[in-house]
Amino acid sequence: MKVKNLIGERFKERPADAVFDSHALSIRGGYIKYVANGIYSLYHPMKRVCQKIETILRDEMDSIGCQEVEFPIALPGSLWDESGRYDSVGSELLRFSDRNGSRMLLGMTHEEAAVHLVREWANTYTRYPFSIYQIRTKFRDEARPRAGLIRVREFTMKDAYSFHTSQEDLEKWYEEFLHAYKRVYVRAGIPETVCVRGDSGMMGGAVSHEFMLLTPMGEDSLAVCGECDYKSNIEAAECIITPDTEGEVLPLEKVYTPDIHTMEELTACIRVPVNKGAKAVVYEYEKSHELVVAFIRGDLELNETKLANYVGEPIVPAELTADSPVRAGFIGPIGLIGTPGVAKVVFDKSLEGMPCLSCGANEIDYHYKNMNIPRDVGEVEYIDIANVVEGGVCPVCGKPSIHIVRGIEVGNIFQLGTKYSEPMNLKFADENGDLHPAIMGCYGIGVGRLAASVIEAHHDDYGPVWPITIAPWQVHICLLRVDDEECHAFADGLYDSLQKAGVEVIYDDRDLRPGFMFADADLLGVPIRVVVSPRNMKEKVVEITTRDKSIKETVPLDGAMDYIQELIGKLTEEVMRTVPEV
Amino acid sequence: MKVKNLIGERFKERPADAVFDSHALSIRGGYIKYVANGIYSLYHPMKRVCQKIETILRDEMDSIGCQEVEFPIALPGSLWDESGRYDSVGSELLRFSDRNGSRMLLGMTHEEAAVHLVREWANTYTRYPFSIYQIRTKFRDEARPRAGLIRVREFTMKDAYSFHTSQEDLEKWYEEFLHAYKRVYVRAGIPETVCVRGDSGMMGGAVSHEFMLLTPMGEDSLAVCGECDYKSNIEAAECIITPDTEGEVLPLEKVYTPDIHTMEELTACIRVPVNKGAKAVVYEYEKSHELVVAFIRGDLELNETKLANYVGEPIVPAELTADSPVRAGFIGPIGLIGTPGVAKVVFDKSLEGMPCLSCGANEIDYHYKNMNIPRDVGEVEYIDIANVVEGGVCPVCGKPSIHIVRGIEVGNIFQLGTKYSEPMNLKFADENGDLHPAIMGCYGIGVGRLAASVIEAHHDDYGPVWPITIAPWQVHICLLRVDDEECHAFADGLYDSLQKAGVEVIYDDRDLRPGFMFADADLLGVPIRVVVSPRNMKEKVVEITTRDKSIKETVPLDGAMDYIQELIGKLTEEVMRTVPEV
Repeated sequence: MKVKNLIGERFKERPADAVFDSHALSIRGGYIKYVANGIYSLYHPMKRVCQKIETILRDEMDSIGCQEVEFPIALPGSLWDESGRYDSVGSELLRFSDRNGSRMLLGMTHEEAAVHLVREWANTYTRYPFSIYQIRTKFRDEARPRAGLIRVREFTMKDAYSFHTSQEDLEKWYEEFLHAYKRVYVRAGIPETVCVRGDSGMMGGAVSHEFMLLTPMGEDSLAVCGECDYKSNIEAAECIITPDTEGEVLPLEKVYTPDIHTMEELTACIRVPVNKGAKAVVYEYEKSHELVVAFIRGDLELNETKLANYVGEPIVPAELTADSPVRAGFIGPIGLIGTPGVAKVVFDKSLEGMPCLSCGANEIDYHYKNMNIPRDVGEVEYIDIANVVEGGVCPVCGKPSIHIVRGIEVGNIFQLGTKYSEPMNLKFADENGDLHPAIMGCYGIGVGRLAASVIEAHHDDYGPVWPITIAPWQVHICLLRVDDEECHAFADGLYDSLQKAGVEVIYDDRDLRPGFMFADADLLGVPIRVVVSPRNMKEKVVEITTRDKSIKETVPLDGAMDYIQELIGKLTEEVMRTVPEV
Repeated sequence: MKVKNLIGERFKERPADAVFDSHALSIRGGYIKYVANGIYSLYHPMKRVCQKIETILRDEMDSIGCQEVEFPIALPGSLWDESGRYDSVGSELLRFSDRNGSRMLLGMTHEEAAVHLVREWANTYTRYPFSIYQIRTKFRDEARPRAGLIRVREFTMKDAYSFHTSQEDLEKWYEEFLHAYKRVYVRAGIPETVCVRGDSGMMGGAVSHEFMLLTPMGEDSLAVCGECDYKSNIEAAECIITPDTEGEVLPLEKVYTPDIHTMEELTACIRVPVNKGAKAVVYEYEKSHELVVAFIRGDLELNETKLANYVGEPIVPAELTADSPVRAGFIGPIGLIGTPGVAKVVFDKSLEGMPCLSCGANEIDYHYKNMNIPRDVGEVEYIDIANVVEGGVCPVCGKPSIHIVRGIEVGNIFQLGTKYSEPMNLKFADENGDLHPAIMGCYGIGVGRLAASVIEAHHDDYGPVWPITIAPWQVHICLLRVDDEECHAFADGLYDSLQKAGVEVIYDDRDLRPGFMFADADLLGVPIRVVVSPRNMKEKVVEITTRDKSIKETVPLDGAMDYIQELIGKLTEEVMRTVPEV
């Protein structure tokens, strides 16, 4: 491939809307083109990167005996009725009707389709365990797509599904997938990816893990213990609070509080610490719009995922108006349970046993002091719906050593259990002929997001620094003086020889100033660069550098081929060296 | 891969709804699974076949310098507004809204996306010509999906787009694509595919060709000349009729014709040949439901595609009721033009100059005799909207040698001209800086349909007979007695050795009766079969056969590896031998 034939513009200006460097470089380098919100076309270099990632994924999936299949992108609504997800998943599931008015949807994940494919065949224990995967386009109607390929609506994903007759067998395979995933990240050039406990969310199941590339730009917050191995997505991290039960129970007192609308204002006004307040956070059911009111200690943050998991339905932050059943700024638990339009009132564990709390009085301009939940509200259940905080207590080692860091999720694995097999009637006969629902796992890696994450982790101001294993090409030849016959002939010859030797090479023989040529080469991020120039030619050498600047050599012309091939081997080995043993 | 691990059922019974053998065998052989009308999942063997076809497609596209990219599946409606197709394409275009109410569609072809991708880059003549392709899922909301993977709603397609500064350059590249396509069919094992003139339909442009696999089951009718090279889809084949202008002009006569509703009944009743009648065929605009009434000679068939091309909007056969603006069974041209609800009245060329015609009187129970169009209707345009017939006149050599045969369309290529570049403003500056719209071509091959067509062309009652170039595996080992230690050890060893040698091998070591094992092997259709049995083992041989029964040999155990590898080479060469030279 010659650079002059490569379709797509490369340019210097950072796009104004790009917050992530990977997003900016994907646009600047001619890798992707915006088509619609969260929807991109891929130019040839990004297509090549994605294909290399797909090859790694196929290789690792095949190596653990996972069988490639293909599910439809457009699925009948009736299939998702079987699992209940047609109704239970929120508006990120894109539903539509076909020409006959049949309910359809765009698959965002394929548990239902996987069960449908194997349901008849997998009717006896002798056929277990087994697993299947596909690498295919998905669609998730994200409310806030952003950051280029990091969070899109249409994306290519490797999704795998495993099927077992026992939890032990699932766990064994789960471990195999986990290790296969680690190998994928190493081979893709991001061995620094960490595995953390995840939230299972709408996928269901008890245990899940996420693979996180740590970066300050990441949109996920992680709780990482500084003392032990504990790592968890904050969505799934248990928040251990020793409730402050000290102090006397005092009589309830209603306070006139005009112009006071926040917990900070309230506690400042009545002169108590903010952690003596019961703060209200209001969500609503996405479908019925009924309210879910959660109370949490004034100094803590509510964790939306934990709350959604607890209520078991899609929720969104409520937008309160004068017509709402609750008074924004003055919401409190007393008398709230049973209010029409309020479906649920939830209390965080942090409030359990606190003798006196400040809170709203459900009346404009009034709050309460000295509210005591058992006395003034009654017996309630206390749920962990709080975000872990920096310095929080580790649920594993018990030390106050939790750090909050950020990461990009580049993969996830779930122990689904029987969430899909049970309602969809995927059952196997055991040795006695008794029927049991199959036990399932599922395993996902987004291809485009992985590519963008590699840029995020490995780039400089001038472009991506691709690991050789997924780089669009291995070698980039820059011919600095196209009008110099000797240079031109040598560069042409090297290009031909490298191609014949099976090396993936891109060749820039445009009549351009070196600065422009190198800027384009930096944006393409190819690991090995060969510069052919009249000055070098006079010395009978070429200059060979690596994109990461670790190598800069002048190599005799007649040794260039060997040197390049050896360097490809060496760079590949450097990436593969850290691949964990099977 | 072992057969026992292969997910999917294989069975003997022909599915009741399968008309095509390829459909029946795709189901019986565990290749595909029905998910919804025109939507299938693929099991592993079909996925492998499709991947091999995709590899051939990539190889041939790359070889003519076509660059792989990727367009979205879900496209914004606004992009199709630019070309006008959002409105002009019928209900086979699946339109929907996303969560924000934005108009979206599922791409059925990607001219708009291709123009969008290259529009800025391709602004100067120096960057032309170039071409891009993708291999990707498409969705076409077919009214009547059928025949397994032959006519589906969701399908994988290789679609390519080329861009030129002149018609001559387009024609040169068009020819290159045409030859690349011929190579694809040969490599996929169906060299018998023919190239015929096609109808450009909703794609636009003047010239197009279709690649047809001739089979009596094909859903396309082709006009093929027995005397010259002329081959055309009947949709595009000019119908050459010498109108019958003999006879006297007679006075118009209204006839009372109770119980007469068809042209055959009418002409029989009034004792004239059926080719003296002007038959009415009624369509309606898909959108406005206004009627399009076409008149054609009583013995000819109307060609819906020609009519649709002439009126320039999607049409569907009208369902006439008592409320329709025309009287079913009594429709005639006199007084019809201008009737409210009748948008267009069209006359076939076959009626031009006929002195006396029988036709409906637009009044219940009445027809006309001796209708003369210029006298009774006025000056009208005569259009070719008739189907060519067996024995018709060839528009190239002029002999009455047209035969009508049937075929499956396995690819098509179009000269689009400026149909998309003009409205979408894809313009290049020429040497003088003047702007011109780019001239485009487009080129499509459906992957799944090609796979199914190969089965249709190459199968027996027991299963597909895969060409080795796209077979799911190259070698199938049948171990007939899994409890015979010597046999088992040899088969295991052969399986390992073949895999290590890079041979794609599937191994059946199930404890099954030979009849069942061979039935499964026939359904998998792998070209080379190796049978390891105690009887052979006693003679120190294995039996090696080909699926097409052309080879049946016993080969000494120690020569088996070599024999198999040579046979793979030989079978591959046989397929490739007929690949046309570049």
